[in-house]
Order: sequence, then structure tokens, then C-alpha cells
Amino acid sequence: MSALDALTSALRCLPGVGVKSAQRMAYHLMQHDRNGALQLAQALQVATQQVRHCTLCHTFTEDEVCATCADPQRNRSQLCVVETPADQAALERTGAYKGRYFVLMGKLSPLDGIGPKDIGLQKLFDRIAVDGEDAVSELILATNFTAEGEATAHVIAQALKGRGVHVTRLARGVPVGSELEYVDLGTIAHALVDRR
Amino acid sequence: MSALDALTSALRCLPGVGVKSAQRMAYHLMQHDRNGALQLAQALQVATQQVRHCTLCHTFTEDEVCATCADPQRNRSQLCVVETPADQAALERTGAYKGRYFVLMGKLSPLDGIGPKDIGLQKLFDRIAVDGEDAVSELILATNFTAEGEATAHVIAQALKGRGVHVTRLARGVPVGSELEYVDLGTIAHALVDRR
Repeated sequence: MSALDALTSALRCLPGVGVKSAQRMAYHLMQHDRNGALQLAQALQVATQQVRHCTLCHTFTEDEVCATCADPQRNRSQLCVVETPADQAALERTGAYKGRYFVLMGKLSPLDGIGPKDIGLQKLFDRIAVDGEDAVSELILATNFTAEGEATAHVIAQALKGRGVHVTRLARGVPVGSELEYVDLGTIAHALVDRR
Repeated sequence: MSALDALTSALRCLPGVGVKSAQRMAYHLMQHDRNGALQLAQALQVATQQVRHCTLCHTFTEDEVCATCADPQRNRSQLCVVETPADQAALERTGAYKGRYFVLMGKLSPLDGIGPKDIGLQKLFDRIAVDGEDAVSELILATNFTAEGEATAHVIAQALKGRGVHVTRLARGVPVGSELEYVDLGTIAHALVDRR
């Protein structure tokens, strides 16, 4: 196999990249951006060596404990469960949450063969069982409002029944700035039920 | 900048990859495919070191002359001009062409600031000027039938006027397997004019 074919085949490990895209990427890098290719190789090696999981919240970090968990200003008794670091970043951008996070790094998806063991559920339960100053009194389920995200939230809520943790879910309702006429029925129904 | 941010930013050197895709790729590699990440790093380094241009046809190769140009079975007097190695591969798959190629590695595109110097035009003219057993008697223009590809073919044809080379262009016409009712007007008009 030539070096160019090997590169094309290696690029296919990226999600969403098929044969044609991989070939286009390989040609582009070799023709126009060899410097970028070397930087990418370097970044891949460094990240593979250095990135690991935070022992408290399971997100990606280069240290024992991530910056958010290590922040003494954070409310230690609130724990917000999200699917990915990207979801965590979206919540952080609101500035409305001052507690800590737990990042599942996935979601339950039986159709894809992803069960409780493949996402960090046991780690989450261990985290909640912690006593002392890191003890959790409220767990906020902020998984996505998709079928898989809802199922994941449901499984977590069921498993924590009777454990003395107050479990809440992000509110469902009409998005800010939207007109009722164009909002889907399920969302309006939820907003009616959960009215306050 | 963290190793993960560095990786996300490095992934953006790939064509068609924006901020969100780069982040998704970085998360995926770190969470599910560190082995693939290391293989990709390796392939990038090897390709950057070893891939260069064929001295005869300008395509990517790891040797002085690519396998197609080195093949003694090939008709040395025919030269087919294509935009990319992918286009060359498409022609090769037909099995209908037994001559040699010249790969421009691009196309004229004044709007993107790509002029004759940015694609291998001078190299092509040098190649055509070669005498002896590698001398070219027919040049087949197989650039794409887009605005840029047509412009590129036109510029090459103009520049080679009076140089004693027979310049031809791939035939325009109705694609195999198509019904006239659904073929665009420009194609039918060309097929009428070029009828044989």
C-alpha cells in the first residue's frame, strides 16, 4: 500500500468521513497543506498521550481532576449529568449553573449495543455514593431530549430512587423567541403540563 | 491551550471540517479510537515525508516516476490532461485509455486567485516540448466540464496553437443510460452539434 493510500485509509477513522472525503482530504493535505498535516500528526500524538478522564466527573482533562471540579467556587452539592463535553460547554456558556458536572461520554442506545457499562453509569453511582464534603444532594439530569437521552435519564432516575438524592430534569417547554404557531405539539403539551 | 483544544484546532486543516465537526472528531478519537488516532498520526508523517510529484506527469508518487509513466506498455505519444489523481483514477477504471497522463493538481480559478502558475501549466508545456521517445503527438484535454475546467482546457488549447501537437477534448454528449426527456438542454444541444 502506498503512503497516500495508507493516509486515505487512516483518515477514515474520523467520524463522518467516507472513501471520497478521505481521498479529498489526503490530496488536499499533500498538495496544499503539508505543514498542517505535520501539525495534525503532532496534535494527535500529544492528545493521545496526555488526555485522560477526570477522576471526579469523567470529562476529558490532562490532570487528575479537571478545572471545573477543582474550582473551589463551585457548589459541591449539585451534580449535573450531561452526555458530552460539548453539552457541558453549552451549559457553561449560559452562566446559569454554578454546581459540578458528571459527563457520561455517551448515552444508552440498545440499538447500537451501548448499554449501562459502555457509558460511565457505574462511575456516576460511585460518585453519588461519596460522603463528606463532595457529597451530592441534588442531581440534575441534563441529557439530551432525544429518545436515547430520555431513556438514559430515566434509567439513572430509577436507579437512584431511595438513595436520598433529589433528582431533577431540565425543564421541557417552549424555546425562547419562538412563536406558538410554529412550535411542535409535543413541546406545547409538555409546556402546558409543566406550567408554573 | 489544552491538548484537546490543540487537536480540535489542528483538525480544522482538513477540507470541509468546521469547528463543530472538528470537536466531534476530537471527542470521538479520544473516547473511542485512540489507536486510530495514533495510526493517523503515523500515516500523516509517513505521507508528508514520502509523497512527492512524478517528474513526468506531476501526479503523487513515492518514486522519481510514477507507475503509470514507468509502464512500457503505455502509448508514449498520447497525453491526457486531468485535474486531479481522482479524475485520473476514473479514466483508468474505464480501461479505454492506454496513453499517459498529466495531472494538473488543480484548475484555473481566477475567483479563488488560482492562476496558471498555481497549477502545473508551465510543467505541462515543458513536458510537451520534450523530444525523443517521450515526444507527445496528441494531447487529450480531460479537465472537468465545469466553468473552471472548461476555462483551463481553453487556456491550454490556446497556448499550444501552432506547436505541432494535435489537441482534442473529451466528447460532450448524452450520458449512457439516460432518457432525453431528463437530460439538460445544454447537453442535448452539444450532442446535436457533435453528432457523428
